[in-house]
Amino acid sequence: MSELTSLALPHVAQLHAYTPGLQPSASGWVKLNTNECPYPPSPCVVAALQREIGGNGASLRLYPNPTSAPLRATVARLHGLRPEQVCIGNGSDDILNLLVRAFCSADAALSYVMPSYSLYPVLVEIQDGRCAVIELDRTMRLPLDRIAASTARAFFLTSPNAPTGVAFSNAEIAAAANAFRGLFVVDEAYAPFARENAVPLLASNPRLVVVRTLSKAYALAGLRVGYALAHPEVIDVLDRVRDSYNVNRLSQVAAIAALEAEPYYAEVIARIVATRDQFQRELGARGWFTYPSQSNFVFTEPRNARGESGPAVAKALYDFLYAHQVLVRYFPSHALTAPFLRISVGTDAEMRVLNQTIDAWLKAPNA
Amino acid sequence: MSELTSLALPHVAQLHAYTPGLQPSASGWVKLNTNECPYPPSPCVVAALQREIGGNGASLRLYPNPTSAPLRATVARLHGLRPEQVCIGNGSDDILNLLVRAFCSADAALSYVMPSYSLYPVLVEIQDGRCAVIELDRTMRLPLDRIAASTARAFFLTSPNAPTGVAFSNAEIAAAANAFRGLFVVDEAYAPFARENAVPLLASNPRLVVVRTLSKAYALAGLRVGYALAHPEVIDVLDRVRDSYNVNRLSQVAAIAALEAEPYYAEVIARIVATRDQFQRELGARGWFTYPSQSNFVFTEPRNARGESGPAVAKALYDFLYAHQVLVRYFPSHALTAPFLRISVGTDAEMRVLNQTIDAWLKAPNA
Repeated sequence: MSELTSLALPHVAQLHAYTPGLQPSASGWVKLNTNECPYPPSPCVVAALQREIGGNGASLRLYPNPTSAPLRATVARLHGLRPEQVCIGNGSDDILNLLVRAFCSADAALSYVMPSYSLYPVLVEIQDGRCAVIELDRTMRLPLDRIAASTARAFFLTSPNAPTGVAFSNAEIAAAANAFRGLFVVDEAYAPFARENAVPLLASNPRLVVVRTLSKAYALAGLRVGYALAHPEVIDVLDRVRDSYNVNRLSQVAAIAALEAEPYYAEVIARIVATRDQFQRELGARGWFTYPSQSNFVFTEPRNARGESGPAVAKALYDFLYAHQVLVRYFPSHALTAPFLRISVGTDAEMRVLNQTIDAWLKAPNA
Repeated sequence: MSELTSLALPHVAQLHAYTPGLQPSASGWVKLNTNECPYPPSPCVVAALQREIGGNGASLRLYPNPTSAPLRATVARLHGLRPEQVCIGNGSDDILNLLVRAFCSADAALSYVMPSYSLYPVLVEIQDGRCAVIELDRTMRLPLDRIAASTARAFFLTSPNAPTGVAFSNAEIAAAANAFRGLFVVDEAYAPFARENAVPLLASNPRLVVVRTLSKAYALAGLRVGYALAHPEVIDVLDRVRDSYNVNRLSQVAAIAALEAEPYYAEVIARIVATRDQFQRELGARGWFTYPSQSNFVFTEPRNARGESGPAVAKALYDFLYAHQVLVRYFPSHALTAPFLRISVGTDAEMRVLNQTIDAWLKAPNA
């Protein structure tokens, strides 16, 4: 390590940065790798941005509302909560970061199941904290007994889970959260695509936190808005570690417009769910094992022309798709995920290109 | 403390959040309290935003460039540096936060002079770190011997300083940075209004970091963009603790357009500097002591109609201005700042309203 790097804190000097999914700048890709919405945001979002920018962008010279107060009010109304139960983040990653910063350390572990969102251990490493990992088995069911026995300070549960798409029921989540002794965080990035969500559980458990994002169902990944729903005392803690101007003016107005455009997004979500279910049936027809998805992506175990599956087969398909400008996600670092590919649900046209490319792979000499 | 709050880390449960300057949502205020630019951003910024939003906002559904790579290239070009010497933040507060997170702890103190930007101790408290404060005297000169003797891991120097407006020369900064043994950060939020800046010093000191913002001179406080200039190894450390999508798509394109609109901003800055110098002369004519400002605000010690100055006089004028919808900033918590008011440089029309309101105060029975 150089003298300069060694000025950093020892754990920081050792860190490896989180690797986000590829964001190709060239066009021509069928991009099914980061679970973005395949449809544009509501026209109301564009109108709200135009209003805020105005003729000469004069409002941009002013700092944004530091607490995103109007957006908090909108979120609260949407979920039937009070504004003091809402904290807005620069994406839900900001919220997750604040939670780790406020609740986790070397003495106060963060627990989560594996596999789940791969950012969690990265956030704990940045904090020089301790992880208490609960390994799932291939059923991907929630091990309630092990969560109940955990002494961790906080638990992050992704539901529907990533990268599997498997949703946990409110009955399971309520049982896990009540048995767990610390802060129980349900990361609901994909909940708009699921049959149930944990928001109704907030009323009966003050240690419960629900985290949402506008990056997936609301088609606003580019604007970075997420939020936490929790007891006002937990929100107050997050606000103490939050940057005072963490959400910019344009993101605030766009998020308000999006959250108020319920009929538009209900239709977008219905369309994505229909495409997802159709794609799952097609994968079933191919004889590929696929977890039942309640999100906007599908986690499937490819079989090659010889009927083989496994990490090498998944990698081979990933590479073939990549070579044909179809981008999906491959998670080779865990035995439970390495035989699978995670494929975001795109438009029907994009899924046709994907299916045709899979067909071509199956017919290719080396598949 | 409630059972719920006590789930948070002990130092977080004790924290008090940073109090930003008031951002009134009602119109009618002469807002001279948070050093925003009184003029709108360049028309090129508005055009760049319009291009990115397009007809239907379709690009907003996609994540932003995770490293803000095109913006890094623009910043590098502007300063004659390489892109690997640049890190982009969600405002320069994000950069300061990353610096504290990467370099400061209970064992690795952050040093800074007092008075300076009041966010520094807040960031250190969030980190459960240690502050090593170097108190200035009323001359506001840099105590080189005490900086040289410091054993802190990092030093944050605001230049031009806030809230005084006093700039330190490159000769002083070079001497301080060379004598100091840790990371020497020059927070140059206000450097575009100054005669000199520390960027040329980067070539000869790898432990030097220069922090900039687009919130002041570039009239983009609402969009949250700041950056660090430093040795590639220091940038690499910041990138490891940085959120992977910290700067949204619209802020990235707006910042590029702003940084490329040099003639526009040269004129804006010249106008602000002219208004500032004129206002300083007017304060001199009133007989008010004012530090020579090289920033876009002025730090002045008001005298009432009886010729008295001091904290009570400053507070009385602050309250009078507030009652007349003129918003300035008052820093009562330090003996060196309590007799002063910090007044952002607005348009000439705004400064006329301010001057007339000061005249009215001087004629008021209780002034």
